[in-house]
Amino acid sequence: MAKDNKPRRPKAETPKGFRDYFGTDVTERNAMLATIAEVYHRYGFDPLETPAVETVEALGKFLPDVDRPNEGVFAWQEEDSGWLALRYDMTAPLARVAAQYRNDLPSPYRRFTMGPVWRNEKPGPGRYRQFYQCDADTVGSASVAADAEICAMLADTLEAVGIARGDYIVRVNNRKVLNGVMEVAGLAGDDKEAERGIVLRAIDKLDRLGPEGVRALLGKGRKDESGDFTKGAELSAEQVDIVMTFVEAPKSVLDRMEGYWTAADQAEQGRQYFKDVAHALSLERGAGRARGESHTPGSARVKNTFTLSYLAEIVRGSDQGLAGVEELKEMSNLLGSGGYAADQIVIDPSVVRGLGYYTGPVYEAELTFEILDEKGNKRQFGSVAGGGRYDDLVERFTGQKVPATGVSIGVDRLLAALREKGRIGTAAEGPVIVTVMDRDRMADYLAMASELRAAGIRAEVYLGNPKNFGNQLKYADKRASPAAIIQGSDEAARGVVQIKDLILGAKIAASASVEEWKSQPAQIEVPRADLVAQVRRILGQ
Amino acid sequence: MAKDNKPRRPKAETPKGFRDYFGTDVTERNAMLATIAEVYHRYGFDPLETPAVETVEALGKFLPDVDRPNEGVFAWQEEDSGWLALRYDMTAPLARVAAQYRNDLPSPYRRFTMGPVWRNEKPGPGRYRQFYQCDADTVGSASVAADAEICAMLADTLEAVGIARGDYIVRVNNRKVLNGVMEVAGLAGDDKEAERGIVLRAIDKLDRLGPEGVRALLGKGRKDESGDFTKGAELSAEQVDIVMTFVEAPKSVLDRMEGYWTAADQAEQGRQYFKDVAHALSLERGAGRARGESHTPGSARVKNTFTLSYLAEIVRGSDQGLAGVEELKEMSNLLGSGGYAADQIVIDPSVVRGLGYYTGPVYEAELTFEILDEKGNKRQFGSVAGGGRYDDLVERFTGQKVPATGVSIGVDRLLAALREKGRIGTAAEGPVIVTVMDRDRMADYLAMASELRAAGIRAEVYLGNPKNFGNQLKYADKRASPAAIIQGSDEAARGVVQIKDLILGAKIAASASVEEWKSQPAQIEVPRADLVAQVRRILGQ
Repeated sequence: MAKDNKPRRPKAETPKGFRDYFGTDVTERNAMLATIAEVYHRYGFDPLETPAVETVEALGKFLPDVDRPNEGVFAWQEEDSGWLALRYDMTAPLARVAAQYRNDLPSPYRRFTMGPVWRNEKPGPGRYRQFYQCDADTVGSASVAADAEICAMLADTLEAVGIARGDYIVRVNNRKVLNGVMEVAGLAGDDKEAERGIVLRAIDKLDRLGPEGVRALLGKGRKDESGDFTKGAELSAEQVDIVMTFVEAPKSVLDRMEGYWTAADQAEQGRQYFKDVAHALSLERGAGRARGESHTPGSARVKNTFTLSYLAEIVRGSDQGLAGVEELKEMSNLLGSGGYAADQIVIDPSVVRGLGYYTGPVYEAELTFEILDEKGNKRQFGSVAGGGRYDDLVERFTGQKVPATGVSIGVDRLLAALREKGRIGTAAEGPVIVTVMDRDRMADYLAMASELRAAGIRAEVYLGNPKNFGNQLKYADKRASPAAIIQGSDEAARGVVQIKDLILGAKIAASASVEEWKSQPAQIEVPRADLVAQVRRILGQ
Repeated sequence: MAKDNKPRRPKAETPKGFRDYFGTDVTERNAMLATIAEVYHRYGFDPLETPAVETVEALGKFLPDVDRPNEGVFAWQEEDSGWLALRYDMTAPLARVAAQYRNDLPSPYRRFTMGPVWRNEKPGPGRYRQFYQCDADTVGSASVAADAEICAMLADTLEAVGIARGDYIVRVNNRKVLNGVMEVAGLAGDDKEAERGIVLRAIDKLDRLGPEGVRALLGKGRKDESGDFTKGAELSAEQVDIVMTFVEAPKSVLDRMEGYWTAADQAEQGRQYFKDVAHALSLERGAGRARGESHTPGSARVKNTFTLSYLAEIVRGSDQGLAGVEELKEMSNLLGSGGYAADQIVIDPSVVRGLGYYTGPVYEAELTFEILDEKGNKRQFGSVAGGGRYDDLVERFTGQKVPATGVSIGVDRLLAALREKGRIGTAAEGPVIVTVMDRDRMADYLAMASELRAAGIRAEVYLGNPKNFGNQLKYADKRASPAAIIQGSDEAARGVVQIKDLILGAKIAASASVEEWKSQPAQIEVPRADLVAQVRRILGQ
């Protein structure tokens, strides 16, 4: 028999939907998370780290997003522990912790946590099955001051990591207002839960589908570009109108504010007030920013006042809706007093947040600067963080309602934004490479690297096969080394070392002819004792 | 029918063998890992982060420790991806990465990685199913300079995180020497693999079982205290003697050195040489350290010379064994030239390292200071890191041998050691608490916290139900707050705030009577404008 059944080799592959992070991908993320942790810590939040693994029972078996039934968790059964799963977010483990340690934790309990979560979703471009989340939550406070605090902290955090004011906006809404709209539209009651779910998710897609797309999803349904049909909520025309009045509130508010501006044109006292409004508007539209105007701290309240009165009209007749408007007003006041302006945090009725479990304020942070999408079209960078109040989540475990509110930052998206803005992504600092000319004098080379390191300089000895010196320089190039150290027996006898300035060398190589390059003007000889000082000079230290 | 089937509530429990980390547990670990990363980075190592999940195929299905068949991995089957598993160490994913990116990575590739690994083991006291590892490896270098570098870096790392010189020792051995001993004892050959495995694991247990226990495992087997019987390697008496000569080498070397000392007593020139030896010995035994003597950089080489000549005798006749002795000698020279002394890094034949895949140098770091065990007995803290050369691991994927060597630090053990040494574990810095006297003036309280934070002071507003003021102070106590800020409507009208110095308050409470406590001398009233300055004074800033 032929010997063709040799053992099959395992494939060296990251599992589908997972990825490896190298070098600066790791350090830049860690640096950003450390900055975020500093802000959170200063706000009184304490770190918490739960394990990657939870019981399926504690976690809840599926993601709360009911319209994507294919999504799920990575779960498996253990003989001694039953069904276990990888956490799919940081909120479910927090609910477990809040219940498990309820007698020991301070109340309210402010905590932050950073780490990977896992989703058993179909992977796609930019869609991974393991990604980082960075969450901050306050458990045990029913006050909207807790929600306002998280929104303020979110704005501070974005500025701390390097997103300039004007490049982001934190938008705030309240689920009770939404519930009020549902009530007015005749969609209250347990039997209408499915419809409400469809409505929520339709509103959440406003950005992507536009008003007509949302309108279709509220009615019969919608066929997308690929021809796939999404079933609608089958609301009546009147119901659709009520919901759309709400959905298009931001636009209506702007129209109304401009109307007031004209009407009040004569009255001198009104003039200043509406100038503020117009200023807020122009900021909102970017025109003011483009003219280099600075913000007016009061303008958020002015704009919010318009929005709130408009919302109060829509939900008239619904106690819950009016309570939501009141909560939004209180948040607006607290944030206004805190000095947050309309270009930082603003009330925006189009914010829904997909997750079913939110019960009060909801908020999200959007980056407003433009990037080019895959097709080369300009578009806003979009959402990088979101959250809200979820007063019912801990109740699953204890039977007692525990009010809670919190935000989750999409770490990878925020990193991508910082890269886009040029805040990170500069070249990695490579080590100085001590090359090996004589295998027998390895101890001398190690001593050189050791001296450089003692001076705080990143350095290493070439540890590959030293026979081919060209390979050593290629290696230095691949490592983006700023300098290579060379000492053959001749140099050793004379008590000197050669230092190749690879930064300068690269510049010469980029601009000069091969002949010039060969003359190697970027290489100098110095006494061995001057090694560290000379390398320092090359590094510009 | 009775309505007794209400939905069962999920248990709020961390899964068996897993744990939650709170507050300083998280920050202290992160700080230690950041210090380690700094050392590794300076040595030219680059960060790498692989996903928690790997294909079972890439990972290898089971841990290489074959004597614990109950140990394993957490694995599950996915429809689209086949069998997936949580990584059980950092070496298997590195082998996968080295194979997968072999055309893109520099060679040699120095990388470090830090993160959790998962073991599907029976949990026990101090034994968790998720724990942190921190690894550094050099892939693609066959030179023992790479091994020496890792040992040097390990010593530097321990000192950098706060383990003082003299409180640790890095012990080095070489598998080839061990294989030489096996050869001499007639245990070479593929058919003796099982016996060799038992011998390796028996030697590895020398610390715990003593020479008699090891001897039993080499022979018929051993019954432990619980009555459980472990089957032995069933070696002949002669074979057992050969292996034991090796196992007891450190003791024999010391005896022999003392013998030389006496013999050389007359010769004046020999005197200084053997004084060095005696000094190394006394350091080894702690006596020198107890007398406050400092190290002698040369002594490691002196002691290593004795050890190496002894080992060369044992493996005489085995080429592989002698090659191992040569490698050890080269490492000893490189480390000696690097200035590492016998109280930092030393050759020690009793180091085996359990894992089967090591092929050359093996090393481990032990902390030598004493702690009290559960029974109140003194014992050495023990091992915190270990590693070695594994030239065959990448070959699984590519068919090509890729030499590699690396170390893994047990993060939790090292943290425990730092705690033991008082390097970490000081009280957490609690936030200043702004209490809430008037619910209506929440904006004022938020402004106070915001001012404090802007001055770099950790601060928060009490966000629980403010009705019971006592609860607010209890909360401040639980948070270990240094100060509480109080402003009722009266104080607000007068433009002042009350500041309660909780650090001073705690001191008074600990030493004074209740009456004195009630007079609250630790509470002062200052103008509202002086809030930040006064809190700074209390914090000693």
